[in-house]
Amino acid sequence: MRIAIDAMGGDHAPAAQVEAVLSSAAEWPDTEFILVGRAEAIEPLLAGKRHPNVAIEDAKEIIEADDEPVRAVRRKADSSMVVAGRMVKEGRADAMISAGNTGALMAVGLLVVGRLKGIERPGLTSMLPTLDDVGVLVLDLGANMDAKPEQLLQYATMGSIYREKVNGLKKPRVGLLNVGTEAAKGNELTKAAFELLEKAPIHFVGNVEARDVLEGVCDVLVCDGFSGNILLKAMEGTASATFKILREELTSSWKNKLAAAVLKPSFRKVRTKMDYNEYNGAPLLGVNGLVIKGHGSSNARAMKTAIRQARAAIQGGVIAALEGEIRGE
Amino acid sequence: MRIAIDAMGGDHAPAAQVEAVLSSAAEWPDTEFILVGRAEAIEPLLAGKRHPNVAIEDAKEIIEADDEPVRAVRRKADSSMVVAGRMVKEGRADAMISAGNTGALMAVGLLVVGRLKGIERPGLTSMLPTLDDVGVLVLDLGANMDAKPEQLLQYATMGSIYREKVNGLKKPRVGLLNVGTEAAKGNELTKAAFELLEKAPIHFVGNVEARDVLEGVCDVLVCDGFSGNILLKAMEGTASATFKILREELTSSWKNKLAAAVLKPSFRKVRTKMDYNEYNGAPLLGVNGLVIKGHGSSNARAMKTAIRQARAAIQGGVIAALEGEIRGE
Repeated sequence: MRIAIDAMGGDHAPAAQVEAVLSSAAEWPDTEFILVGRAEAIEPLLAGKRHPNVAIEDAKEIIEADDEPVRAVRRKADSSMVVAGRMVKEGRADAMISAGNTGALMAVGLLVVGRLKGIERPGLTSMLPTLDDVGVLVLDLGANMDAKPEQLLQYATMGSIYREKVNGLKKPRVGLLNVGTEAAKGNELTKAAFELLEKAPIHFVGNVEARDVLEGVCDVLVCDGFSGNILLKAMEGTASATFKILREELTSSWKNKLAAAVLKPSFRKVRTKMDYNEYNGAPLLGVNGLVIKGHGSSNARAMKTAIRQARAAIQGGVIAALEGEIRGE
Repeated sequence: MRIAIDAMGGDHAPAAQVEAVLSSAAEWPDTEFILVGRAEAIEPLLAGKRHPNVAIEDAKEIIEADDEPVRAVRRKADSSMVVAGRMVKEGRADAMISAGNTGALMAVGLLVVGRLKGIERPGLTSMLPTLDDVGVLVLDLGANMDAKPEQLLQYATMGSIYREKVNGLKKPRVGLLNVGTEAAKGNELTKAAFELLEKAPIHFVGNVEARDVLEGVCDVLVCDGFSGNILLKAMEGTASATFKILREELTSSWKNKLAAAVLKPSFRKVRTKMDYNEYNGAPLLGVNGLVIKGHGSSNARAMKTAIRQARAAIQGGVIAALEGEIRGE
């Protein structure tokens, strides 16, 4: 299998991308890794060594974090992200991974790779940590701000197939993000979606409140892009604020500093557990090829996690399974 | 001034309510406190003492936490919550406070107290903690699941007046909960609301992302009831999960337990700071009288905080100010 990696996208590109690819190339000799980006930036990082399963696809342009997504994808035809997308489209890669501009990656999915037939609006996903370490795949997280009930149903179906094929879960539990657990709760969108989800051939476990998401009550959580974004960023902000206050308190006296020093490894573990970067590599579901998003702050370890997800998605035959499901097979 | 307290609503009723009233009655002799509820449950808690500014208004029924709100309010005409609402309606109390069934309290606001003329949908508010300890008034948190842009504008205006009159903030900063800070971000609702808020005679500071809410970037945050509920519960769930993992980690060895014991007062401080119960007492904005909601788990201290809010709201002349604003004075 062949995986194209956007070597220029993300806060630590291209160093983290190259490091992750070298480590992956050694671990998985059956896979060909194509670093897409400026050859003159990538080659020095390879330090002149030959790696039989690592190649470079030269792409001169870079889509920046603050570029307007659609315009950037249209104008920067020779950017690393667009070229990687084109490789997937043309079958020269089985998956692409990018930690660059999220909006642009969605545009690459829609405009370069193209939608899966029958899918109205692809969904942006993320794996959130759960207390039981299984994680929950949440979608949509911002691709589709004003979702329709039928689109939430498509997210549920696609998420369910993904968790089964990639993570090996039998009958993944699908939840609907809502303001209460009772069936009649919610806004017009969730009330209508609830009825569709109940009838669908998935393992629907009902409404899930935002406060229970981290408890691991479902494997797939569906929502419109607006609510999903609020959920994700509220979690991020709260965890960050908690650790900020904690840090202030624990350095407020010498006694505290000493005790905190003893606990440092424990604090690091807690932080890691709450850090959704640990679950790096979330697919754009509904495009006709594997487009995997890495977090913008991905380091080499996070990129490798994303590569592992991409490999599992290729091996699981996710795209074929999605196509089959949509055709009703 | 006279404040009616629903003595029967909340997890710790009536003990917490009575304790808070006794302490408040001693601190604020200018205020009359009316405990509304079953006299036979309240009287023993007063221990036979006479308090010149504490009265009991007997109400035989109780609206339970799991009662269907509208039906309960219609059928239980002699419940403590409905009676307290009627006292506000009839001018026998200047404010009412309840820590009972939130949905029922909204129904009391709408059906018993009544809407302010010109307000389409009252909003449910909550004060969330911020790192700078000022707190942010968020609305709506669930009264209005499918809000219209004009309703978000009304929330902004009402929230702004409340913060000014009750908390003494000059030109309260009003933010719009959204998925990005740029003006063009969001769903149809927030895009339309942004345009209205920009033109309104308030101090609009633009879009606010969920991750920045706790940083204290605004004094009033407006959103539809669905998103507000997701925000609030995501914060609650994340804080709770973080402390859960922390507790597990810090008791995982004797060394950790010893160090954690030293830090116990600090942990308690952090927890308190993240606890939105500390800011108890949030108004139902848009009804024709002061209806203040206490958190269901309110203890006596939290109830007293709510009483303090009610006093400030009465003294600030919030309802008259809201009426004046709506009439365009």
